[in-house]
Amino acid sequence: MIKCRAAVAVEAGKPLQIETIEVAPPKAGEVLVKLVATGVCHTDAYTLSGDDPEGIFPSVLGHEGGGIVTEVGEGVTSVKPGDHVIPLYTPECGQCKFCKSGKTNLCQAIRATQGKGLMPDGTSRFSLNGKMLHHYMGTSTFSEYTVLPEIAVAKINPEAPLDKVCLLGCGVTTGIGAVLNTAKVEPGSTVAIFGLGGIGLSAIIGCKMAGAERIIGIDLNPDKFDMAKKLGATECINPLDYDDPIQDVIVELTEGGVDYSFECIGNVNVMRSALECCHKGWGESVVIGVAGAGQEISTRPFQLVTGRVWRGSAFGGVKGRSQLPEYVDRYMNGEIPMDDFVTHRMGLEDINKAFDLMHEGKSIRSVILFDE
Amino acid sequence: MIKCRAAVAVEAGKPLQIETIEVAPPKAGEVLVKLVATGVCHTDAYTLSGDDPEGIFPSVLGHEGGGIVTEVGEGVTSVKPGDHVIPLYTPECGQCKFCKSGKTNLCQAIRATQGKGLMPDGTSRFSLNGKMLHHYMGTSTFSEYTVLPEIAVAKINPEAPLDKVCLLGCGVTTGIGAVLNTAKVEPGSTVAIFGLGGIGLSAIIGCKMAGAERIIGIDLNPDKFDMAKKLGATECINPLDYDDPIQDVIVELTEGGVDYSFECIGNVNVMRSALECCHKGWGESVVIGVAGAGQEISTRPFQLVTGRVWRGSAFGGVKGRSQLPEYVDRYMNGEIPMDDFVTHRMGLEDINKAFDLMHEGKSIRSVILFDE
Repeated sequence: MIKCRAAVAVEAGKPLQIETIEVAPPKAGEVLVKLVATGVCHTDAYTLSGDDPEGIFPSVLGHEGGGIVTEVGEGVTSVKPGDHVIPLYTPECGQCKFCKSGKTNLCQAIRATQGKGLMPDGTSRFSLNGKMLHHYMGTSTFSEYTVLPEIAVAKINPEAPLDKVCLLGCGVTTGIGAVLNTAKVEPGSTVAIFGLGGIGLSAIIGCKMAGAERIIGIDLNPDKFDMAKKLGATECINPLDYDDPIQDVIVELTEGGVDYSFECIGNVNVMRSALECCHKGWGESVVIGVAGAGQEISTRPFQLVTGRVWRGSAFGGVKGRSQLPEYVDRYMNGEIPMDDFVTHRMGLEDINKAFDLMHEGKSIRSVILFDE
Repeated sequence: MIKCRAAVAVEAGKPLQIETIEVAPPKAGEVLVKLVATGVCHTDAYTLSGDDPEGIFPSVLGHEGGGIVTEVGEGVTSVKPGDHVIPLYTPECGQCKFCKSGKTNLCQAIRATQGKGLMPDGTSRFSLNGKMLHHYMGTSTFSEYTVLPEIAVAKINPEAPLDKVCLLGCGVTTGIGAVLNTAKVEPGSTVAIFGLGGIGLSAIIGCKMAGAERIIGIDLNPDKFDMAKKLGATECINPLDYDDPIQDVIVELTEGGVDYSFECIGNVNVMRSALECCHKGWGESVVIGVAGAGQEISTRPFQLVTGRVWRGSAFGGVKGRSQLPEYVDRYMNGEIPMDDFVTHRMGLEDINKAFDLMHEGKSIRSVILFDE
């Protein structure tokens, strides 16, 4: 049993509390990871707010981390102490119907227990003063130490800076993967990116990597346009500057619509705009953002019958164990210019500030650095 | 100027009237076709009912025909008198952005005038007692003679029976093409077909051609199950036999959902069921049916984010001039067993009976035979 510091989500709507928690050793098929850094993502905030119907408290949030394996449980063969890893909220068992399909990254091997905030054996490795704390998204990176199933860690290049590549554990991979894996954007394409937060900016990076010719960024906050253009947006537009629905504006701007669009916000009305700004005959829209519980998307079916395609993407369609290491290598090669995404860095004790900065729209990503 | 018999849609909601109309000769780039046979399709009934906001009266309806070229206008080179042709409501000019995209069959070359019930030069070739009648869908096959743009006729094997292959002008191609071209169903797939009318039965034929392993037909009318099974459905289910939503029933039956589903009715609630019965991670649903004006489809975006894909299909994604002749050949080879679709045959004078039979659910297709 290890004692360490963690930011505990005690109940919905309350700030996280920095506590000394107990972390039980890894059981068979599990690994103990010492976190070096973790990003703070909107999904953590969504769950903490209480709006997430699947949120469970008390728990240890966090899912965008980077760390080092310090101990492995019985039977673990693919990683060993000292390996650098990124925790995976979308694991990859390689054995289930989903992994074997060749069509999706949504491994379901441990989904039931993960959704309940538990390890695959149905128990938790975390406790506070002897009372059980729940895991979160199978990762719980807001802790100095976390326990993960072996199938939920991606072993990466040990030379990669964990305080940067932790972002590949969620946002950056989600945005880039949606472009490269889900939409498969072709060179010369015209694309629209709705929402220029971390995911949207990553989608711009992905579009640039894919050779898109025209990349239109859309956001209500023009302060985000400089960064979007720096990363590859060829133009940025603000829906507030137009009287017409933004989809009509984009169809006009592009003489018929875009080849691909990406919704990176989680707003169901924007999802509709993103679909309807696609070109008749072939335009494809990818939903990346996570909408609030119970919300629905709508459109006239004529949009689909005339050739538009509506799809979605989770973790960018990337298989964590087999494909995420390549993303790390591409970052190391300079292909993924995400260093500017880390606008703030702080210790675990200041983690609530990271949430404040996010809510105020002042950060792209805050990264929590754990003490050495 | 030819005088011939035609079934005229005088106004919305009224039976068609058999009249002797005048048909002007083909202008440059146009061809005159003597119809041998025409199917009567739900879309004709939809427009005649008055529910179609784009319906124009008085007009000559009909879009599922087969005939013989009798005269060509100036500059027409690809067909000549005596050629057997199928009129195309989705033309193929080969020159527009859409034709050149390689991604869609939705040629837009003459869409504006076609939508107004006119030939590409903005005028009509039909009149009744000197008063202009509108064209319909660019085809107007409920007439002994019709005039069509050259780009809107597919030249086919002259040995093909026009009273059968006329069905390839709409319904059968729409259903088969949605499976082969739009969804690209793979061998071994599990599929669900919602609605077992002419389109749905054709989709079953397509799934069988594609090598689907499990083909589930769904209809509220169990009288349709025999034909569906004869054509390849491995099981048929009636939503009225279950308390649970049909998508839940299908997900359970298939241990997770179908690989592909097809909505062949035009009911927005069924479109939702068709999407939601798809397998997490990869299931794709194709909307084929045409919904009523202003109606919308909805779902939770989570359905897409977890890997389902929503698309649509018009005329089965088939390019009429370049690909429809192959469909005729495949029919001639016995690959498309659609003879049973023609449940009723009658002369033009009885065309209103064909509408009655359709409304009563007693026909798959009625074919109107023109006198020799």
